[in-house]
Amino acid sequence: MESVVKKKAMTYFRENVEKAAAYEPGFQPKELDVVKLNTNENPWPPSPQVSKVLSEITLERLRRYPDPLGNEFRQAASEVHNLPPEYIMCCNGGDELLSMAFRAFCDETRPVAYPVPSYSLFPVLAKLQDCKAIEIPFDSEFNLPARLAGTNAALTIVCNPNAPSGTFISVDELASLADELSGALLIDEAYVDFAEANCLPLVKNFDNVIILRSMSKGYSLAGLRFGYAIANPALIEGLLKLKDSYNVDALAIALAAAAIKDQKYFRENIEKVKAERARLTAALRKLGFDVPDSSSNFVLAKCKNCSAAEVYEKLVGQNIYVRYFAHPGLEDKLRISVGNPVQNDKLLFALQEILQK
Amino acid sequence: MESVVKKKAMTYFRENVEKAAAYEPGFQPKELDVVKLNTNENPWPPSPQVSKVLSEITLERLRRYPDPLGNEFRQAASEVHNLPPEYIMCCNGGDELLSMAFRAFCDETRPVAYPVPSYSLFPVLAKLQDCKAIEIPFDSEFNLPARLAGTNAALTIVCNPNAPSGTFISVDELASLADELSGALLIDEAYVDFAEANCLPLVKNFDNVIILRSMSKGYSLAGLRFGYAIANPALIEGLLKLKDSYNVDALAIALAAAAIKDQKYFRENIEKVKAERARLTAALRKLGFDVPDSSSNFVLAKCKNCSAAEVYEKLVGQNIYVRYFAHPGLEDKLRISVGNPVQNDKLLFALQEILQK
Repeated sequence: MESVVKKKAMTYFRENVEKAAAYEPGFQPKELDVVKLNTNENPWPPSPQVSKVLSEITLERLRRYPDPLGNEFRQAASEVHNLPPEYIMCCNGGDELLSMAFRAFCDETRPVAYPVPSYSLFPVLAKLQDCKAIEIPFDSEFNLPARLAGTNAALTIVCNPNAPSGTFISVDELASLADELSGALLIDEAYVDFAEANCLPLVKNFDNVIILRSMSKGYSLAGLRFGYAIANPALIEGLLKLKDSYNVDALAIALAAAAIKDQKYFRENIEKVKAERARLTAALRKLGFDVPDSSSNFVLAKCKNCSAAEVYEKLVGQNIYVRYFAHPGLEDKLRISVGNPVQNDKLLFALQEILQK
Repeated sequence: MESVVKKKAMTYFRENVEKAAAYEPGFQPKELDVVKLNTNENPWPPSPQVSKVLSEITLERLRRYPDPLGNEFRQAASEVHNLPPEYIMCCNGGDELLSMAFRAFCDETRPVAYPVPSYSLFPVLAKLQDCKAIEIPFDSEFNLPARLAGTNAALTIVCNPNAPSGTFISVDELASLADELSGALLIDEAYVDFAEANCLPLVKNFDNVIILRSMSKGYSLAGLRFGYAIANPALIEGLLKLKDSYNVDALAIALAAAAIKDQKYFRENIEKVKAERARLTAALRKLGFDVPDSSSNFVLAKCKNCSAAEVYEKLVGQNIYVRYFAHPGLEDKLRISVGNPVQNDKLLFALQEILQK
């Protein structure tokens, strides 16, 4: 290998990019025999309809460019949500929509605001877009901070249910927030399929509300990268300008559409996760963890008489992966995805052993 | 449907976004029986290995998040290009890399420069990133404009082979350009699989060169959305900060890897396209078009005694789609993708009829 490289500059990058740290996604072990409860995948597989459509994909579908707007999915989602397709934009995962929203609304003079702790991608995107991030701390019960309404941010983001707390803010409170804000409000509902309510009705009443939905969790399609925006058509039209021409591929459009059409399977899947969530929450509390009620497919368990970092390491030693964040307010907590009964049993058994020692 | 929307602002968007026009991708007819020579798809299907891997995809692959870096593909591409995997970054289509490059290098004080006419996405991305676009016109033979070296742009882009001309700039000329520039040089090699040379060697000699490659054309996978960057590891590391955590999906990684591993099929496919390109070029010249030699999978045909817009419309009337750009310098030309022998014959027959009337 040749080693003569003409090094011409200290950096070619913009200063904010040079200084930014990359977002750290949760560890993705390659082995299939681990208990993987660290990145909030759904423990049950996607709908059999996905398998059926997958088996019917022809090479011709791959040879040709996909539909730029993914209208097959838009139409299917439109029917599920009872909104015209013009309210919907397909994205390469919910993360793509978040990145687009920062580019659409924020810059050096137009800040973003969000409560913390929340999705740790938000500050990374703020840095990359070179915009000020106004972070308003949640109280210990993760109530909506009143100060969020008064920041004058160009973009306000509320993750609901929140990650990593799993807690839910009522639709009425978010309607009031939408009403008070002068900028756009993005409600990240990636986990809302596991909650008892959602903010969908707000897009018909407020022209500044964008809902983010994901096929990764409720529909068990994390490997597919498919999310979507729901908002009034004027907002969608503006966001489309930032979309890559063909941002979702032909396979993803077809498979995501198949999944969302199978609402019966979806609802049964959600009920199974909720039942396991209730069981896991009760068992963790019995083991001495503080666990707020979760509206999501994970729980945030606070160690009262243990070190979260230590417990995390010991679980890894047994091939059990949960998520530990060394962030302020989270050092004493573990975020645990709700697994299937076998996975949850393995986790609970391991925790019992670790805590008894 | 409720119609009461609280309209709170004229716009929530940044001014540059509000004023930007969206990029117009080529028309994607849904019918499969048209002669589609408008968006440079490969007329032959992808490798049978893609089909094989597709049939082996399990729902478990879709349930779990993909590998954030797509290492299966990186490894395969690394072997094909004889470069370490650290030189490679997977992207959701080449367009995603272009968008990332604008965000990495350009802003209000850091312009982009490129020769024109070229890929019409460049000015759209400049507008969205709010950076000045320095457009340097090609001469009539599409030689590299000397002035491109002196712009002081933070990012210079050369599409090689160029679209929509199909012409090729020599590796030596681009090496000199890389040497002269103070900023980054992105060489968009989306079409290079159909050329006789490429700029891959430059990434080992210059720390400011980024090569863009695509699986859409040479590997017949336009529907899959898979492109990649090749650059020295320091540049790749910076670009990775701008990448969405899981920007390429599990299916795309597996299928793109299968395609690039099958170099025998790939080379045979390329030779077939080149043979048809030679036949199409000769026949178009015989019909009276001016057609520069193409190093790509399309040709740019200049109407000498006809109106390109009229010919375009008449072809559409016969379900034959080519690309017409109503842009300065292109109004008298048609960009025609090289089809398979049947498609090319249909096009040539239709053109003969249209021109005789």
